[in-house]
Amino acid sequence: MADKQDLIFVGSYLLERLAQLGVNSLFGVPGDFNLGFLDLVEDHPDIDWVGNCNELNAAYAADGYARVKQKSIGALLTTFGVGELSAINGIAGAFSEMVPIIHIAGVPSTSQQKNKPMLHHTLGDGRYDAYYKAAQQFASSHTGLMDLSTATSEIDRVLTDCITNARPVYLMLPTDIVYQKVSSAPLKTPLKPSPPETEAEVEEFVLNEIQKLVEEAGEDVVILVDACAIRHGVKEEAWDLIEKSGFPVYAAPMGKSAVPEGYERYGGIYVGSLSHPDVKAKVEGAKLILSVGSLKSDFNTGNFTYRIPQASTVELHSDHTRIQYALYPGVGFKKLLPKLTARLHPLDHPASSVTVPPFRALLPNPAEDPLGADVISHLWLWPRMGEFFEPEDVVVSETGTSSFGALAVPLPKDAIYVSQILWGSIGWTLGSTLGAALAAREIGLKGRTILFVGDGSLQLTVQELSTMMRKGLKPIVFVLNNSGYTIERHLHGRVRHYNDIVNWKWTKLLEVMAPEDIKVPPKSYTVHTKSELDALLKEESFAHAEGMQLVELMMDKFDAPVALLKQAELSGKTNKYVADFV
Amino acid sequence: MADKQDLIFVGSYLLERLAQLGVNSLFGVPGDFNLGFLDLVEDHPDIDWVGNCNELNAAYAADGYARVKQKSIGALLTTFGVGELSAINGIAGAFSEMVPIIHIAGVPSTSQQKNKPMLHHTLGDGRYDAYYKAAQQFASSHTGLMDLSTATSEIDRVLTDCITNARPVYLMLPTDIVYQKVSSAPLKTPLKPSPPETEAEVEEFVLNEIQKLVEEAGEDVVILVDACAIRHGVKEEAWDLIEKSGFPVYAAPMGKSAVPEGYERYGGIYVGSLSHPDVKAKVEGAKLILSVGSLKSDFNTGNFTYRIPQASTVELHSDHTRIQYALYPGVGFKKLLPKLTARLHPLDHPASSVTVPPFRALLPNPAEDPLGADVISHLWLWPRMGEFFEPEDVVVSETGTSSFGALAVPLPKDAIYVSQILWGSIGWTLGSTLGAALAAREIGLKGRTILFVGDGSLQLTVQELSTMMRKGLKPIVFVLNNSGYTIERHLHGRVRHYNDIVNWKWTKLLEVMAPEDIKVPPKSYTVHTKSELDALLKEESFAHAEGMQLVELMMDKFDAPVALLKQAELSGKTNKYVADFV
Repeated sequence: MADKQDLIFVGSYLLERLAQLGVNSLFGVPGDFNLGFLDLVEDHPDIDWVGNCNELNAAYAADGYARVKQKSIGALLTTFGVGELSAINGIAGAFSEMVPIIHIAGVPSTSQQKNKPMLHHTLGDGRYDAYYKAAQQFASSHTGLMDLSTATSEIDRVLTDCITNARPVYLMLPTDIVYQKVSSAPLKTPLKPSPPETEAEVEEFVLNEIQKLVEEAGEDVVILVDACAIRHGVKEEAWDLIEKSGFPVYAAPMGKSAVPEGYERYGGIYVGSLSHPDVKAKVEGAKLILSVGSLKSDFNTGNFTYRIPQASTVELHSDHTRIQYALYPGVGFKKLLPKLTARLHPLDHPASSVTVPPFRALLPNPAEDPLGADVISHLWLWPRMGEFFEPEDVVVSETGTSSFGALAVPLPKDAIYVSQILWGSIGWTLGSTLGAALAAREIGLKGRTILFVGDGSLQLTVQELSTMMRKGLKPIVFVLNNSGYTIERHLHGRVRHYNDIVNWKWTKLLEVMAPEDIKVPPKSYTVHTKSELDALLKEESFAHAEGMQLVELMMDKFDAPVALLKQAELSGKTNKYVADFV
Repeated sequence: MADKQDLIFVGSYLLERLAQLGVNSLFGVPGDFNLGFLDLVEDHPDIDWVGNCNELNAAYAADGYARVKQKSIGALLTTFGVGELSAINGIAGAFSEMVPIIHIAGVPSTSQQKNKPMLHHTLGDGRYDAYYKAAQQFASSHTGLMDLSTATSEIDRVLTDCITNARPVYLMLPTDIVYQKVSSAPLKTPLKPSPPETEAEVEEFVLNEIQKLVEEAGEDVVILVDACAIRHGVKEEAWDLIEKSGFPVYAAPMGKSAVPEGYERYGGIYVGSLSHPDVKAKVEGAKLILSVGSLKSDFNTGNFTYRIPQASTVELHSDHTRIQYALYPGVGFKKLLPKLTARLHPLDHPASSVTVPPFRALLPNPAEDPLGADVISHLWLWPRMGEFFEPEDVVVSETGTSSFGALAVPLPKDAIYVSQILWGSIGWTLGSTLGAALAAREIGLKGRTILFVGDGSLQLTVQELSTMMRKGLKPIVFVLNNSGYTIERHLHGRVRHYNDIVNWKWTKLLEVMAPEDIKVPPKSYTVHTKSELDALLKEESFAHAEGMQLVELMMDKFDAPVALLKQAELSGKTNKYVADFV
């Protein structure tokens, strides 16, 4: 039995573990099965209760938080049934995109779970395990915390899985367990990721193989960085390899901002047949591609149009390596990358001096804009935004025109790009921006948090604008007002009414949802022309404002970035609604 | 092979079945895996696409629609993964509360589901069945529609289950199947509920048993009507029994408005120890209780404080009957009730002449209001609203102070009460009101749709105010501004910050979210006092307005209906956060 001095509530133990992992904000909505735990949260010195408007938005916020904070996790608290199920799409998205989140659901007491009374928030048929079963589909690890004797080891187990696998975990927290006491002794040992053990012999073999291929490829070696390099925390290790080897480097869409986009040997985004022709030629013409953390989803590969032979590829992943056709399970990039860098660095390799096409987004001549010289077109908007971005900005772009547009613009040093390219749940960015902005403030980023979101997407999760102001955040929200779901118009139903939405008075939203005691009142703008937007972006009082801002950009209903039009054409082919034999 | 004349798209077949079941509104959000089907919807003469702001709200709306439309079902359309999962809490709520909804998820083509490419909206690990597995937890029936040869029989099977069990069903609709052709011949036979067969001999035995008990009980027989009488469509059969027998009748909270509340032999709401003392004495003192469609959840029974011996109870359910301790599976009330009425009607039973305590909600003398003579208190608000209600009104009340308050007020003839007492998901009423108001218009109700919702709850689903105006609906929305989650303050954390919310400018909301081409602009009011509210309610231009209206009621943070305070005290006891040994 532990010394009485060492005893601590289970709820407090959980919070201490979260604090150790760098969690300073807990997202969620109160409910009667989590109120007792919330007392501990509210009284905790290092963890702030965010208090979202709804649970889906809260899950999105936890996701954005984890992405920007990095080397930490997102944390979400909901209540039994009604709360946890509302969040499930946000958690599934984090699973899909590999974002570590702990979802804590406050649930009835252990005795209620055994006796199964027909409580509110139950299905009325005695199935107390239905939500747990649903949650398991989207959790890399889960626990019911029904037994005090294993409570702390279970907390430690799921949190370790969370940081090891970079995926959500689910923890049921019964009301009575929260205030049971346990030994605090395990807290003295911080949790750390527990990747598979690598056998030294295999690793040595793998390094030799890669080195041989690199040497044979001559000047035709490129590095391609993708999502998992960010999600599994090897940005620094990858950067070390990139810088020291001097190899040309490109990024997949989901790897954007993993490599500083101003780096002189960075060629921009490779996305199969949607790539800039220079990039496509360089990547697909390489004899060897060192791929770091690839994730080959449709939108991340130009609808599966990679033209890279497997025989020319070395894939480095979090838990395995693939060299040409050979798979090496257990050889993960966290340990391999530094060793590979040590091998390749001294080589003075010919690939380190081949030219790399510069990644630029040149502002087009407005007079030549097909939509009109002063119309805010996608062609002009994104390069112009590229000039507006600053180091350490966090740029969040919504699935749809925004994410296709922002991809094509290089970001400044230490800027972070946040987008949901695989999961692609519309409305995600608004919640995510709340979390991203909080994390940016916590880690002391000097830039702004800037959101690009369409009018259609914004409606899904709009209430979280309020929470941003409540927390004293000041993101800049650009609302692309293009009268509905423009990405869908290009996929199907160009003039169908189901792609229309109500045109809200967007510039009144912040005022309606601002707290009464807000220190700096929010500001909103509508801009109709290039010149208006240009002037606004140049104003110092706008670019570095003290309060939150929303800018409504009036855009054409059918205008879209070129990459989106191409992607839509490709998806339409695979996803078409067969009417040939009608 | 069917005649070519008889061929029809699978998507059209599904829509025809929905139309046959009385579905005239389809709720949901477009997404790239349902756009093809949406073409058919948009072109359908009898089914209107609602186009919600998000999927959870859409599910709530489908639920409210089914409740008010009755003898029909709600219908929801979402897209693969991101859309369907966002709706899952709404569907689980419909499962719990027994509301028939078909949830149609537009999913990738049958060949994509076999080959499992890493499409957007997937989990990235090839598991195409994860959403289906989650959905199964909350569906009484489900189908993947992967095989053309069984497509129409599968559609018919799940829809039949939906109307038989009054619970949600889940249907995956692959993009390619939508436009495959099938025979339309089955459409000639309308679907109907398929309850279990009752053996005539057993039914006769059951009727004899009940008749014997009724005769033995003398004047001490009461009828208690509950949720399942409404959900399983026996309101008319139950009313026939009530009227013809003349027995005193009471309703559980979830049975409210099943019996016309102005009926002279209706005594009001029985809710265990929270009941009015007269009601409690009458019900618990009865020698025999004929219970129709009972559902014994915590909030529906005064936290399990029924004091009714099983030996005095006959429970009539949709698929079984229980007489005292004996269970009769398969003897359902749809067929049994008319026969029971025929048996009991001619009896001239002494229970038909005992006095029943009148169900009234008398307006208190303002001068005696403990909160102040002109403060809008719960004590005064609900009886005052009782005077405002009219026949055929639909009254929707949110979980929390509103639902506890509205329960205590008798509703006029043919008014419908809509509340979610078992599931209790906050924010549900706003979406539900949209569906309820649409259904009320479709069935030609002459009353208004009136929503009571707290400020905390409204924030969860606020965007659907927009859809109400888009569809030309004109519900009256009363927003109880009591500075946060008042029900939770009474459960736990009375002065904790986690129960606070941002105080929005509520009266600006409608203006911000109204369509530009709205025919009658919405109106909003803030009322601070009893006299202001009284005056407003008396204005004809308010009571029967041509446009949508929102009324912000300024109320005390801690004020609550008496029943809520009692319930909170009871839940607190079972659900308390053990701090005794701290």
